[in-house]
Amino acid sequence: MSEDRYKKGLEMLKIMNPASYQQLQDNLEDIAPDMARFVAEFPYGDIYTRKGLDLKTRELITVAAITALGTAPLQLKSHIKGALNVGCTREEIVEVMIQMAVYAGFPAGLNGLYTAKEVFEDLDE
Amino acid sequence: MSEDRYKKGLEMLKIMNPASYQQLQDNLEDIAPDMARFVAEFPYGDIYTRKGLDLKTRELITVAAITALGTAPLQLKSHIKGALNVGCTREEIVEVMIQMAVYAGFPAGLNGLYTAKEVFEDLDE
Amino acid sequence: MSEDRYKKGLEMLKIMNPASYQQLQDNLEDIAPDMARFVAEFPYGDIYTRKGLDLKTRELITVAAITALGTAPLQLKSHIKGALNVGCTREEIVEVMIQMAVYAGFPAGLNGLYTAKEVFEDLDE
Amino acid sequence: MSEDRYKKGLEMLKIMNPASYQQLQDNLEDIAPDMARFVAEFPYGDIYTRKGLDLKTRELITVAAITALGTAPLQLKSHIKGALNVGCTREEIVEVMIQMAVYAGFPAGLNGLYTAKEVFEDLDE
Amino acid sequence: MSEDRYKKGLEMLKIMNPASYQQLQDNLEDIAPDMARFVAEFPYGDIYTRKGLDLKTRELITVAAITALGTAPLQLKSHIKGALNVGCTREEIVEVMIQMAVYAGFPAGLNGLYTAKEVFEDLDE
Amino acid sequence: MSEDRYKKGLEMLKIMNPASYQQLQDNLEDIAPDMARFVAEFPYGDIYTRKGLDLKTRELITVAAITALGTAPLQLKSHIKGALNVGCTREEIVEVMIQMAVYAGFPAGLNGLYTAKEVFEDLDE
Repeated sequence: MSEDRYKKGLEMLKIMNPASYQQLQDNLEDIAPDMARFVAEFPYGDIYTRKGLDLKTRELITVAAITALGTAPLQLKSHIKGALNVGCTREEIVEVMIQMAVYAGFPAGLNGLYTAKEVFEDLDE
Repeated sequence: MSEDRYKKGLEMLKIMNPASYQQLQDNLEDIAPDMARFVAEFPYGDIYTRKGLDLKTRELITVAAITALGTAPLQLKSHIKGALNVGCTREEIVEVMIQMAVYAGFPAGLNGLYTAKEVFEDLDE
Repeated sequence: MSEDRYKKGLEMLKIMNPASYQQLQDNLEDIAPDMARFVAEFPYGDIYTRKGLDLKTRELITVAAITALGTAPLQLKSHIKGALNVGCTREEIVEVMIQMAVYAGFPAGLNGLYTAKEVFEDLDE
Repeated sequence: MSEDRYKKGLEMLKIMNPASYQQLQDNLEDIAPDMARFVAEFPYGDIYTRKGLDLKTRELITVAAITALGTAPLQLKSHIKGALNVGCTREEIVEVMIQMAVYAGFPAGLNGLYTAKEVFEDLDE
Repeated sequence: MSEDRYKKGLEMLKIMNPASYQQLQDNLEDIAPDMARFVAEFPYGDIYTRKGLDLKTRELITVAAITALGTAPLQLKSHIKGALNVGCTREEIVEVMIQMAVYAGFPAGLNGLYTAKEVFEDLDE
Repeated sequence: MSEDRYKKGLEMLKIMNPASYQQLQDNLEDIAPDMARFVAEFPYGDIYTRKGLDLKTRELITVAAITALGTAPLQLKSHIKGALNVGCTREEIVEVMIQMAVYAGFPAGLNGLYTAKEVFEDLDE
């Protein structure tokens, strides 16, 4: 069954963000391969597969939280891409960032927008 | 025009959470009434009135961010009520809290759930 | 196998902190019973059972991190009890709190000490 | 010389906030008396005695930082009293709180104002 | 009147930090020009124009808060420059950073100092 | 006696991390040499010299706290090196990082692992 969670997680990641997960696996290969497995199993196998919220909303609340915390620019980039992959628009992501200025301060909102800009420009190239 | 922002904010607050705003105004009356005005004008007049995200999504990303930050239980309660007021279900709010465990840690997710429980129980009485 | 993770987690919780987990389960029963299961499965079934660090060190790093973050007094209490349950001394916990003043500021260290004091006094009654 | 730092700290605390320090000492007496000494020696003996910023500004930046972090309401109360003790006005403290909404979010600013209100009301009784 | 807030904000920014605002506008132009307007209107038009605190103190509490939060190096640089523009000395900024070690931990204070050093060196070239 | 604290701190730093302290001193030389002295005196002279926790545990709780806070990559690197210097294994450090995912979120744990990887690779060269 644990095998199932991993498989379910990988399937979810295929929809949401296969490139970021590949990169994460490569980064962790030598140092903590179990952690790569945990990422597939728990967030993607257990949580994103749950009912009750569609994937678009799940990605937008993740983008909101990481922007508000302001400590994980790498993961923010990866979830902005994930949000676009599941059908969110650029405008929706921008609106999340602007709203975060209210709850986590203007610097958090601005840094969120700068990260989004970087992701959008990468995708346009 | 500033008058307009205030009016637009109050109208938005009537839809979203009039009771919480009344309480905020009462709390700030003697010490910082301008801050109550700023709350109506900027978050509610300028931000929640914007296009690009519906009110349900706006409240869920706010609930997510405040849960992740973990420093504002009073405002979390108020936005859980706001989320319900604009049509979010209890299940959706619970899902946001569970997902926050992934991005801000299990204690943040659990405390979000305990706060949601308190709000739901208050409403049931 | 998922059943295994849950069982392994419950066994670990029996050693570490059965009372806190019982309380957590009771709190989540009506609102998010799956989250109680996730807590047993992931932190306790997957992480605390890992080799590489003994349980005493695992509890002290958890106490350190929660004290530094400063946002989860309930979970801090629970992990101070857990640390004592797996054999840490009160003195060790106090030393963790004092050291946190260096890395997260004096208020974080002081609030950690006040929480520890509360737990120690509860246990002495 | 360490004796000197402690004495200098206590003298500074006599000016800034003797009541809060007495309370801190009482709280730590049984559990971590060294930490009470460290508080007198380092923040008050080493830092607040430095040239380059007057005591009013030192208290206002402390109030700002603790309000922005949002994790230490006890210490926030104590430094609001300290700010008043060294000559800051209530209006100045209120302005700090309002400005923190910009850099740490509206909930942080509002919670700062509610704490200030509580302190002011205590002092008026 | 909203036009007024924008104008008032731009005038304040001309005094405080025109170069940083120009850069912010350029960065947001393609992605979220409204956010650039909000920055001029709310922090600079509504807040920094208020009575009750002089501009030097307003910049020092902002520098303190951003240093304590530790999540916004770009905005910290910009406000160190802003503080110097309104008449704060380098020594005052250094003192703010050192004091933040007490309230947000030594790493926060040290990183604040390293950022200040970078700004001072840029200005000296 | 203050002289003593400084000497005791330097001796401790010789054991724990002389290279990082040399770099810190060089960085602060022109801007805030007192801060370099405070670092030797307070964390290293007063705290790490205390009984009650061995140096390995002291470094692991520091690594845990800085990883959880997520705001000080430079200091995280330096304390990973310090942990290795006092006898912690790479495996122990990796376990701390993985466990932090539980208490501070997966991004915090992952970024801790990436930083550890960087340090390990530097040491292997």
